[in-house]
Amino acid sequence: MLESINKPYLMFLGDAPDQLAAKTAAGVAHWCPQDCLGQLRLAGCQADLGLPDMSIAAAAAQGAQTLIVGVANRGGRFSELWIDTLCEALQAGFDIASGLHNRLRAVPRLAETAQRCGRRLIDVRHPVSDFEVGTGRKRSGKRLLTVGTDCSVGKMYTSLALAQAMQKRQRAATFRATGQTGIFIVGSGVSVDAVVADFISGAVEELSPDNAADHWDLIEGQGSLFHPSFAGVSLGLLHGAQPDALIMCHEPTRTHMRGLPDYPLPDLADCIAANETAAHLTNPAARVIGIAMNTAALDAAAAQILLSETGARFGMPCVDPVRTGVAPLVDALE
Amino acid sequence: MLESINKPYLMFLGDAPDQLAAKTAAGVAHWCPQDCLGQLRLAGCQADLGLPDMSIAAAAAQGAQTLIVGVANRGGRFSELWIDTLCEALQAGFDIASGLHNRLRAVPRLAETAQRCGRRLIDVRHPVSDFEVGTGRKRSGKRLLTVGTDCSVGKMYTSLALAQAMQKRQRAATFRATGQTGIFIVGSGVSVDAVVADFISGAVEELSPDNAADHWDLIEGQGSLFHPSFAGVSLGLLHGAQPDALIMCHEPTRTHMRGLPDYPLPDLADCIAANETAAHLTNPAARVIGIAMNTAALDAAAAQILLSETGARFGMPCVDPVRTGVAPLVDALE
Repeated sequence: MLESINKPYLMFLGDAPDQLAAKTAAGVAHWCPQDCLGQLRLAGCQADLGLPDMSIAAAAAQGAQTLIVGVANRGGRFSELWIDTLCEALQAGFDIASGLHNRLRAVPRLAETAQRCGRRLIDVRHPVSDFEVGTGRKRSGKRLLTVGTDCSVGKMYTSLALAQAMQKRQRAATFRATGQTGIFIVGSGVSVDAVVADFISGAVEELSPDNAADHWDLIEGQGSLFHPSFAGVSLGLLHGAQPDALIMCHEPTRTHMRGLPDYPLPDLADCIAANETAAHLTNPAARVIGIAMNTAALDAAAAQILLSETGARFGMPCVDPVRTGVAPLVDALE
Repeated sequence: MLESINKPYLMFLGDAPDQLAAKTAAGVAHWCPQDCLGQLRLAGCQADLGLPDMSIAAAAAQGAQTLIVGVANRGGRFSELWIDTLCEALQAGFDIASGLHNRLRAVPRLAETAQRCGRRLIDVRHPVSDFEVGTGRKRSGKRLLTVGTDCSVGKMYTSLALAQAMQKRQRAATFRATGQTGIFIVGSGVSVDAVVADFISGAVEELSPDNAADHWDLIEGQGSLFHPSFAGVSLGLLHGAQPDALIMCHEPTRTHMRGLPDYPLPDLADCIAANETAAHLTNPAARVIGIAMNTAALDAAAAQILLSETGARFGMPCVDPVRTGVAPLVDALE
């Protein structure tokens, strides 16, 4: 079942030890600032989203529906210190949505308070597991999937930037979230890496149902076919997505697969070929139509040269969604 | 965490409507008859494993440790009619292990009785989810994985036949179970298609740990890289297994992928190439060293011709584990 989260949000930062611990919350505040009424910080919090500091009562008065736990302690777990505040939010009429590894539902005080108050505890990393097995049935509408040479190379950012750019051009386009930050941003989606393995492709089929012939789903990719830890997730996602178009995402200065010093990055050409070949199982027309690089580690001149050279080498647009925008990718879709 | 089930077993067949409903139990009785003391059948049961019919008390007196629920009602669920008997088994000191989709643990009467009696309810399709993420670290010892053109083409049977044949030759070899029937047969393993997607390869790494240099793990494969519903499971399993050797399993008369009439079987050569290429990510030496066909649908002469021709075409042994045995595959490993 797809998660669905009511907006607007109060962003809970807890006692985050630094800005990085609030990375998820920062992503949400960046992509849907209009949905984030304020931030709630406990004593000692070292993160700041640049949103108004706001009490639960004040946020409730402004109509906030959900408290987003967009912060991680060590190990992605939450702190005992937060529970009083979370209970107070439930009592004030908020749902709580969390992207942490441990479950809100597993904390007895939270579970009891939520039940008593008739509010929801939404653990987006623990999807309610009633997905169907994938069918491979061809669906109507168009689909684009971002894939990558590695984890954390800009797949979500690229998908969201494409959605924004296409919507500006009045194209029918919907971002489809497959990870916690994306789910908070659009208020629905499925955390595919947390689905039971048998249902990976089925969950993605449900995420991206039949649609109008000219409508594009922009599906957030996860992992990489070349990441030994997560390639199964990436392949199931690729088959379930049935993409017509793929964007290859890449971080050009990375020297090894994320978390695995002994595994080098794949060659970009090999990675493009492997994704196209695998995608053809459920959509024989699937094609990589562009490349999105995260060139933050390069200076502007070096980045421009790399983007141009890579685009020429592969005969397709190559952009940095942050530096150059994604207009050439949207052009390529049209 | 790997499932571990105590032997010997009393096989519970419930009110199975036909022999097919007891397919799992029949597989267990076939491969480890010495561990199956008897069968327990309720009124109306139409299945028969050829084991002595035995009451719970009689099985307990003979030392049975676990009641195996190796039978499925419609939809893989269990019947209300069984619960009295299952409670009686717990009270008599049995653990209960089930391969059904719905959980023993979710039935309040069973959960309470098990807790009161200090016995275990083991739902092998619902592994306790504390696996680590896969690391891709090279492990010592040798590994063989059975892969397939489709689901249900003989991967478990081939792996078990190889284990038996190698053990007869005094080779150090261990069957590693990745599905419910295999888990019951050897008393441990992990149902990989039921693991949370992020942990597929990590679960297989745990299933097949470091071992002596000349020891072979014979890992049961699941699904197929060419099955749109389950390829993610197959790929994560392939990466976690780090196989040195692969056996390609195939059913030559099948006209479409199991459950998906619109998806044809892959070409055998393509399937071999795709599995080798994917396997090279975590073991560059991985190689398909033989083919195992289920030729039950052919007559003996046609089967022999097909096996010979296929073996010649690919330059590797091609056997039917049931008709011809697996000796040529073991030879190829040596």
